Amino acid sequence: MADLFNRRMVAFDILTDIRAATGSWSGEVKRALQRRSAMRARFGILTLGVDDLERSLKFYRDGLGLPTQGIVGQEFEHGAIAIFHLEGGMVLSLFPRGDLGLDAGIDSTPRSPTEFSIGHNVSSEAEVDQVMARAETAGAHITMPARRTFWGGYAGYFQDPDGHLWEILHNPAFLPSAE
Amino acid sequence: MADLFNRRMVAFDILTDIRAATGSWSGEVKRALQRRSAMRARFGILTLGVDDLERSLKFYRDGLGLPTQGIVGQEFEHGAIAIFHLEGGMVLSLFPRGDLGLDAGIDSTPRSPTEFSIGHNVSSEAEVDQVMARAETAGAHITMPARRTFWGGYAGYFQDPDGHLWEILHNPAFLPSAE
Repeated sequence: MADLFNRRMVAFDILTDIRAATGSWSGEVKRALQRRSAMRARFGILTLGVDDLERSLKFYRDGLGLPTQGIVGQEFEHGAIAIFHLEGGMVLSLFPRGDLGLDAGIDSTPRSPTEFSIGHNVSSEAEVDQVMARAETAGAHITMPARRTFWGGYAGYFQDPDGHLWEILHNPAFLPSAE
Repeated sequence: MADLFNRRMVAFDILTDIRAATGSWSGEVKRALQRRSAMRARFGILTLGVDDLERSLKFYRDGLGLPTQGIVGQEFEHGAIAIFHLEGGMVLSLFPRGDLGLDAGIDSTPRSPTEFSIGHNVSSEAEVDQVMARAETAGAHITMPARRTFWGGYAGYFQDPDGHLWEILHNPAFLPSAE
């Protein structure tokens, strides 16, 4: 404990010296201080704004085979939502575009596929091909067939019924550490 | 092993009987069969299409305090990207909208905030307030101040420099199991 206390005091002295010498915090120190009050580096839910909840549910549940209890929250006005509990505690949900707007306090806006893409990194190039084939069977629009990429991986893109982009990729560097 | 084998045979017989009796697979069985070839229920990367990579990097790195090595991939034409490694192995990345379009094989499209929202579920109502305040200081546009929600939680929304929606919420039911 005493040692930790001493090291903290020395660190404080060093920072104070820098401040005195330079007249202001350097960018490095500023960023370090900011990180101390940073928001936790995570998110756990991705909500897709959709035009037709039933159609999107069908695509994700029956087409891609993702697990869900179907549409819930119908007891609330503007509350109907489909929720998918994914691996690692992540949640994917489908929420009518207008209701997302209402909830967020903004006007509903039309579709725009380059707003974002969802990256699904799989274990092999063969699995990329399998998922792309599955998506195509499910009615997805393939915008870019799987091919070798400039960054040295293998990837393809498809769009869900609302045009939301999914990139199915094989990039060993980004796989969860368990694999 | 023999027992497992027998159980599998019985299950097969039951499914075959159902098929013979009904002339087709029921929706339940169809969905179960589809799940066997389902894509893995996960995604690990969320790529945001942005209008100005430097501006967005500044917002997420300096404003919100998320960890990143900054912009990488500049050695590739249309490859510059900012990557944030988040907790649990998730990756958030910022990619110019036009480059995302090129990569996915579609035209660039204008901003549309109701395409999706990113949900960040935190441990308490006080933490919701802290993160909302931090975001506001970082220059986020608050579209819905944190308030009690119809579903019994506490949540607010802000927009990043491209209008992408973040919902900061406290919903104990959806917290990662470790907390």
